[in-house]
Amino acid sequence: MLSLQSTTSDRWLHQVDESLDKILIDHAHCEKKAASTALNLIFAYVENEELCLEMTRIVNEELEHFHLVLELLKSRQIRFRRLKPSVYARLFNELVSKQEPGRAIDRLLIAALIEARSCERFLLLRDHLREAQLQDFYGGLVESEARHHATYVRLAHDYGTSDLVEQRLAELAAKESQIIEVGDSQPRMHS
Amino acid sequence: MLSLQSTTSDRWLHQVDESLDKILIDHAHCEKKAASTALNLIFAYVENEELCLEMTRIVNEELEHFHLVLELLKSRQIRFRRLKPSVYARLFNELVSKQEPGRAIDRLLIAALIEARSCERFLLLRDHLREAQLQDFYGGLVESEARHHATYVRLAHDYGTSDLVEQRLAELAAKESQIIEVGDSQPRMHS
Repeated sequence: MLSLQSTTSDRWLHQVDESLDKILIDHAHCEKKAASTALNLIFAYVENEELCLEMTRIVNEELEHFHLVLELLKSRQIRFRRLKPSVYARLFNELVSKQEPGRAIDRLLIAALIEARSCERFLLLRDHLREAQLQDFYGGLVESEARHHATYVRLAHDYGTSDLVEQRLAELAAKESQIIEVGDSQPRMHS
Repeated sequence: MLSLQSTTSDRWLHQVDESLDKILIDHAHCEKKAASTALNLIFAYVENEELCLEMTRIVNEELEHFHLVLELLKSRQIRFRRLKPSVYARLFNELVSKQEPGRAIDRLLIAALIEARSCERFLLLRDHLREAQLQDFYGGLVESEARHHATYVRLAHDYGTSDLVEQRLAELAAKESQIIEVGDSQPRMHS
């Protein structure tokens, strides 16, 4: 789905069952991080008017989600705290090309694939978790992740031909599959 | 006004008369920077729930202003472009304490004073510029800058006694006056 080349393994669902609280806390951090990624793209590509408008929308939505997760934590009496991030985003972002315009394409496509993976995992959480509160919560976030994925992929086409962008998307999706397959022994949203 | 210890000199208004376009472009960059400052404060003080809520509001407002300035530039056929930032924010931020909780107080109070200076200069622009479009534009931004100033000062009180915060605010305001008095030969919003 959404350009991903693998589906999440049961290993992750075991982590969810064992350490749901940590995964929820990590989710809040991920929303904050997603806002920051979008804001950084405005700084990097400020001449691209459509990108600036779309990134502004995404910053707003991610911060809104951040607050929704904080409220969820509060309602479950889970204290929000710092958490070592998973290796996923770091390893994935190390693949970004140093040279423009390839760098822009990579940054946008990696953001697109992270949104896609979140979308896939939110769907899994919606179907796997037993509590209606959590089912509704994760079901409610799926649409925006899928939309952000599409926005990032579309914007990548401002920096290269369709062939180039599609080819790079497939390459990066293959790398993403490897990184998520290895996973992380710490339970996280992208472990 | 708003804790500032000086008023802008005529030197700056000469820069405005000479290089209005550059100051308008720099203004767009300042709004983007202000959004980034607020988002960074969420990252740094994520345990402070009120701060996270207020910073989210400020991120959203600053990005809204960023787009308003971009529209203004477009309507005046000024191409938005990269611009070397003025030394003001860099010199001012060098004063931030390395140690918490003083660091939190400093970051919040410096943000408060930058908002105050912007507020003072927006009022000046409203009264100095001749065109109704610009008078309305700058008049319309004054209230939010003053409100952001108050929010930042209030949040600083989460990290120290009133006496301490007031004393540090006065110290930093004195430093701010010195920095803005020296100014910058490049025409900028805070030159």
